[in-house]
Amino acid sequence: MLQLVGLGLADETDVTVKGLELIKKAERVYLEAYTSILLVDAAKLEAYYGRSLIIADREMVESSSDAILADADKIDVVFLVVGDPFGATTHTDLVLRARELKIPVRTVHNASIMSAISATGLQLYNFGQAVSMVFFTETWKPSSYYDRIKENADLGLHTLVLLDIKVKEQSMENLARGRKIYEPARYMTVAECARQMLETEEERKEGTCARERLAVGVARVGSGNQAMVSGTLEQLTCVEMGEPLHSLVLLGKRTHYLERDFIREWAIDPKMLDEIWRRDYEGK
Amino acid sequence: MLQLVGLGLADETDVTVKGLELIKKAERVYLEAYTSILLVDAAKLEAYYGRSLIIADREMVESSSDAILADADKIDVVFLVVGDPFGATTHTDLVLRARELKIPVRTVHNASIMSAISATGLQLYNFGQAVSMVFFTETWKPSSYYDRIKENADLGLHTLVLLDIKVKEQSMENLARGRKIYEPARYMTVAECARQMLETEEERKEGTCARERLAVGVARVGSGNQAMVSGTLEQLTCVEMGEPLHSLVLLGKRTHYLERDFIREWAIDPKMLDEIWRRDYEGK
Repeated sequence: MLQLVGLGLADETDVTVKGLELIKKAERVYLEAYTSILLVDAAKLEAYYGRSLIIADREMVESSSDAILADADKIDVVFLVVGDPFGATTHTDLVLRARELKIPVRTVHNASIMSAISATGLQLYNFGQAVSMVFFTETWKPSSYYDRIKENADLGLHTLVLLDIKVKEQSMENLARGRKIYEPARYMTVAECARQMLETEEERKEGTCARERLAVGVARVGSGNQAMVSGTLEQLTCVEMGEPLHSLVLLGKRTHYLERDFIREWAIDPKMLDEIWRRDYEGK
Repeated sequence: MLQLVGLGLADETDVTVKGLELIKKAERVYLEAYTSILLVDAAKLEAYYGRSLIIADREMVESSSDAILADADKIDVVFLVVGDPFGATTHTDLVLRARELKIPVRTVHNASIMSAISATGLQLYNFGQAVSMVFFTETWKPSSYYDRIKENADLGLHTLVLLDIKVKEQSMENLARGRKIYEPARYMTVAECARQMLETEEERKEGTCARERLAVGVARVGSGNQAMVSGTLEQLTCVEMGEPLHSLVLLGKRTHYLERDFIREWAIDPKMLDEIWRRDYEGK
């Protein structure tokens, strides 16, 4: 059987009891290590589980899924995913392939940032579609995310912005020369995301990501040193939130005053937050 | 400290290792028992945790939150919530009250239907705002959910419909007479939800919940006997999906063919699903 097991958000103890039992009993255990990360490394997980893990990078999952699924009609293979197995990035391809091979599939769900973002006090009912923010380069600044946020904003809904992570990426030169040399891992910060949103706003000028739009920046949700900050997009461009992973929520105008009360706790400037809330959000 | 611990979706082993440790060590442990349910009862949880639970009904949480928080500045109090603590229904009030009392709060996240619905193979990125469906009565058939679904549908997005549960509710007569006699628990089924959607469509006639709109019904997500069914809303009005909890997803037109491939597995009539998909969804 193929067993997809979610690891939750922070550390080795965020696995469920059900998931841990499957890990201990499986023949092979893969750790998907490119769409998200825990705040602890693979060695710590191996020590905690008392067994070795096979690191599955993007290349392995996308090109060698049959190796992952080998003999899974007879033995149990666990595929570990940070968050929920079908969360921010889906592994539906792997499941579809398992179905073709008549391999049964079981899923052990876990916390995902898609629902844990409610720790901000912002109600999940008030979120529209989630979007991803990729690292801009000099020549590539994709802004389709802006259209999605605008669709949400027009309905008064919040948007969860998931921030790019780059692990095991090659430089253009190393890629061109076929050299398997990888760049250091990069994780987008709340400040970088806010800056890119203002950059797109400069171009679009539709107001969706204007300087005084309110937003909440979060870091390491679910961990002991989780951090949250609320303020304007402009204020968030300067915020320092420490280690990854970060996410950002752009507030919609359908915001309830209880939501404001909740995020006010982490305001960079509570007075300014109150003023903007009254002017642009309350009753809108 | 107030420790909000999510229990996940199905049974006693869906708690995280982190959550279980807190439960074992806390002074008092409450089980919130009115916004959702596990597929096992409180007695089973108590046996598994090796300790007794205080059942927290709506009245206790909404009117006696200070009793729940008593001494939590000095001792640890665990508040258990099915799914994620801030999931479908939020307990932000309790947290705001704890803040007022200067009681530290910690959250242990877990799977929520809001993200585990991705087990349908439908991508979370393609979901708009979630909606709730309440039991209609002869005289009360609230249809504001229809407007929300329409907002999503106009953007081509899926809608997760969360279905009403009624536990420890009094009849109008018993309520009027102040008799604490409670009705049997009721959990809305996929078929009931689909019928109510068609009923609202009859009234609105805007097509958002038309008979041939495609939908996925799910039951007991995350459990060993999870069930999924796909088909038209009309087909779902007759489907029998067994024990609670059920949820329903109404498909948006931005549906990707991989999503169709995934849900086709559970089609009531695969040929009809393909035809409607080609006619109304593909490339729309």
